[in-house]
Amino acid sequence: MTPASQLVTAAAWSLHPQLAKDTAPVGELALSRLLAINAADYPWLVLVPRRAELSEIADLGNDALLLMREIALVSRVLKEVTQCDKLNIAAIGNVVPQLHVHIVARRKTDPLWPKPVWGAAPPRAGEREAFARFIASIHGKLGLAEENNGASFNQ
Amino acid sequence: MTPASQLVTAAAWSLHPQLAKDTAPVGELALSRLLAINAADYPWLVLVPRRAELSEIADLGNDALLLMREIALVSRVLKEVTQCDKLNIAAIGNVVPQLHVHIVARRKTDPLWPKPVWGAAPPRAGEREAFARFIASIHGKLGLAEENNGASFNQ
Repeated sequence: MTPASQLVTAAAWSLHPQLAKDTAPVGELALSRLLAINAADYPWLVLVPRRAELSEIADLGNDALLLMREIALVSRVLKEVTQCDKLNIAAIGNVVPQLHVHIVARRKTDPLWPKPVWGAAPPRAGEREAFARFIASIHGKLGLAEENNGASFNQ
Repeated sequence: MTPASQLVTAAAWSLHPQLAKDTAPVGELALSRLLAINAADYPWLVLVPRRAELSEIADLGNDALLLMREIALVSRVLKEVTQCDKLNIAAIGNVVPQLHVHIVARRKTDPLWPKPVWGAAPPRAGEREAFARFIASIHGKLGLAEENNGASFNQ
């Protein structure tokens, strides 16, 4: 029998305060919370699996496959919305240990190209309305993707 | 009927010359070629799916799940061999468009911590013998992993 204390621990996922501070919520996928960073030059999404005390993809077990499905789904939607030249995807976590995966839309004309966005100065924020439209676009396309291919997306 | 020219194109995967120049081979997994970069301060592996003309994970289709299995397998082996503090994983491809995934072992005491290794100066190479021992260790552990959990690894 599982002690109640362990059950409580297993359920106690919550978004890391630094991620909460730096992002706006987009919605909930089957495994992950989808977040957006307001970066005018690099449309920037973040997937955070709702699993407590995880910092490495390798520790996800079979949920790693679900995470990959969500990375692929969000990548397609981000590419469709932004018509970007390249997607940059990374799980780093040297500063914020809670497992999170960046999915960033890059253009050959953006200020940092071809350098990665990580380790650079904090991104320039865009106008609030533009950021809200971006989030609404991603949200809408994920809704369409659910109808088209059965991928799970619940706001 | 598929024209012969298309068949030739589909089969024509080969390692990008820049990746070949920057790395040493470790072995072949079911989907990907595993490579190592000689970086004394950041034990550094690279997975390259053997699929021609691919630059995005989202274009892998179902092979994305196989890639994730290989990312998780190689992550566990790299962590075991290096006893690192954190793994940094990324698919960037802004300079070399052929799809490749970096898996880098980081320590809190390494010269760049907590910054990512990408976009920084080229890594300092270690001694040839130490690099050969690192490759042999990874290769050996992947062999053990094959016996233990059925993951595919064929040198």
